[in-house]
Amino acid sequence: MTGIHVYHIFHIICVLFVNILTLTMKINDKQYRTIWMEGNTIRTIDQNQLPEKFKIVRIDSTEHVANAIKTMMIRGAPAIGAMGAYGLAQAINQMNEPNSEKIENVRNNLFQTRPTAYDLAHGLEHVMKAALLETEPQKMKQAALESAQAYADASVEGCRKIGEFGNELINDGDRLLTHCNAGALATVDYGTALAPMRIAHNEGKSIFVYVDETRPRLQGAKLTAFELHEEGIDHAIIADNAAGFYMSQGKVDMVIVGTDRVAANGDAANKIGTYEKAVVARENGIPVYIAAPLSSIDFTCPTGKDIPIEERDQNEVLYVNGTRVASKGSTAFNPAFDVTPAKYITGIITEKGIFKPTELYKLKN
Amino acid sequence: MTGIHVYHIFHIICVLFVNILTLTMKINDKQYRTIWMEGNTIRTIDQNQLPEKFKIVRIDSTEHVANAIKTMMIRGAPAIGAMGAYGLAQAINQMNEPNSEKIENVRNNLFQTRPTAYDLAHGLEHVMKAALLETEPQKMKQAALESAQAYADASVEGCRKIGEFGNELINDGDRLLTHCNAGALATVDYGTALAPMRIAHNEGKSIFVYVDETRPRLQGAKLTAFELHEEGIDHAIIADNAAGFYMSQGKVDMVIVGTDRVAANGDAANKIGTYEKAVVARENGIPVYIAAPLSSIDFTCPTGKDIPIEERDQNEVLYVNGTRVASKGSTAFNPAFDVTPAKYITGIITEKGIFKPTELYKLKN
Repeated sequence: MTGIHVYHIFHIICVLFVNILTLTMKINDKQYRTIWMEGNTIRTIDQNQLPEKFKIVRIDSTEHVANAIKTMMIRGAPAIGAMGAYGLAQAINQMNEPNSEKIENVRNNLFQTRPTAYDLAHGLEHVMKAALLETEPQKMKQAALESAQAYADASVEGCRKIGEFGNELINDGDRLLTHCNAGALATVDYGTALAPMRIAHNEGKSIFVYVDETRPRLQGAKLTAFELHEEGIDHAIIADNAAGFYMSQGKVDMVIVGTDRVAANGDAANKIGTYEKAVVARENGIPVYIAAPLSSIDFTCPTGKDIPIEERDQNEVLYVNGTRVASKGSTAFNPAFDVTPAKYITGIITEKGIFKPTELYKLKN
Repeated sequence: MTGIHVYHIFHIICVLFVNILTLTMKINDKQYRTIWMEGNTIRTIDQNQLPEKFKIVRIDSTEHVANAIKTMMIRGAPAIGAMGAYGLAQAINQMNEPNSEKIENVRNNLFQTRPTAYDLAHGLEHVMKAALLETEPQKMKQAALESAQAYADASVEGCRKIGEFGNELINDGDRLLTHCNAGALATVDYGTALAPMRIAHNEGKSIFVYVDETRPRLQGAKLTAFELHEEGIDHAIIADNAAGFYMSQGKVDMVIVGTDRVAANGDAANKIGTYEKAVVARENGIPVYIAAPLSSIDFTCPTGKDIPIEERDQNEVLYVNGTRVASKGSTAFNPAFDVTPAKYITGIITEKGIFKPTELYKLKN
């Protein structure tokens, strides 16, 4: 056996082992992260084209980064955080003479792309701090790239741990309900709300997932269902209106959703409609868990009332896939998020364990 | 002035007076009922083509009647009731020798078209009873037509009264929320839930209506918004998910919806999602009214658990306007209705007044 053969066999074993161990996102049976860097180019899956087309795009400028976030080519708080980190690192590497003023400018520009997700602030801050510890341009650039990569890797590891803690809550035979997409596509990998489901499924637990389609942008029908289908997890898409029906019929054992920002008092902002699901779940005695990496917790924000709620273009409601579905003369309102008060939340699943909303202070460092 | 002139002026005054008095549905500034008969032909607005196309179709056979109900060319419990009445009258008029067996056969066939709406049973029963009081074929036919027409006229008058009673609940400046379409298009005219809004608006009260788009079939965005726009009533379409958000923000003063069947204990079946809205409304101290003609109240049905819930084609969820919006390998569940338990209902607005769900027994004759 030649050295090359030994290397190949070793490589195959490693890949298999890593796949089994990491359970990263599979698309067409290949492993992907939602976002990664190749040299100074950011690569990401264009989520506006899913599930019809699986397309990986190249992102080469700050303008393109901002646009990718605004248009929701990339979405989901942790994924936006990673895009912010990579985007700032890329920008710093494109500067002739990086300095704190230039870096803060880019940080501020990117921070304004979406107001509700807190991870974005976190990812940007992480890279900016690392870069500003250095003074030499080349070292600043290197530090920015390394810290962005470290941020993304830590995000993956955090989600994996959320999956492990969350998995402990899931019993064989459980029927779960989730809203929007808090899967691998909303993070760098694994997902937040979907991470426990991936691990439960991989351990051989039989689970069933009700997937709220999640109007107006249908991230449930388009992205969550896509991920669950690729993973072979049993599920059905339902109109958002049907969630309460299944809860009232005793057919939902647990609700797990992601979050865009958790306030210090445990109130959690998430995709519009989450609040309704949580109220109806509590009314039916169904536990509601928020899967949230620490990067989503904003201790500077006392309560949910202090979380800014993004209002998006009314055409997201009035049109579906480019076709107008609404009466011609009518207009629409389109708040993208709502806040679920802490009293409706059973627990927050973090990479440090599961906490009651009232216990969040324990995580404050 | 000639007799012709006098007649014309008299006619114009009559039309104006009737329009002011009846406030019937306006489309392109003309008055319409949702369904009517011309000779032995039923005419109805094809609601599957609204709001893009306003098309009046001819219905000439029982098969066509059944199909119009099943495909939801006509929908809304009171409108379905009228279609059943007209449809059975038409069938009786097409029989060579009408007899109770033949009539019951048609009644049974039409009754099976949609299982949840109770008005359908009511409309069919009304015409069958009237026809079977006669024995001569020609008189049976005549009685069937007359009773169907009387049923439709009584339905219009009932809705008008619902509007008047409901209007008393509405204050100047109120912001109302409605789900699905319980407008003129869901009835023969006026609507149930929309009747109070029409009258309030016509009396000069300033009102604003949040219109749940009502997935999967979008009757809110397509039909309710269309009606409100035609009437000039201020409104905005929202994703169903956003209803709770506006309730929690203190921006909704009252919820008024229609119903497909009210059980004897006051539980009410209505379009999927109504249950969620009612639970969240109660949580926020917002009154929830069900606008229901007596024909929707089923005293033979003890509780909401006894109301059959129609499961419709999953493609209503997976496709929007003919385009697939969901992940390819995924399936959907599509319950068309849910039941709102009486405890979430503030009052039921009928043509006999407003009753608490626990007081419905007073209406039993």
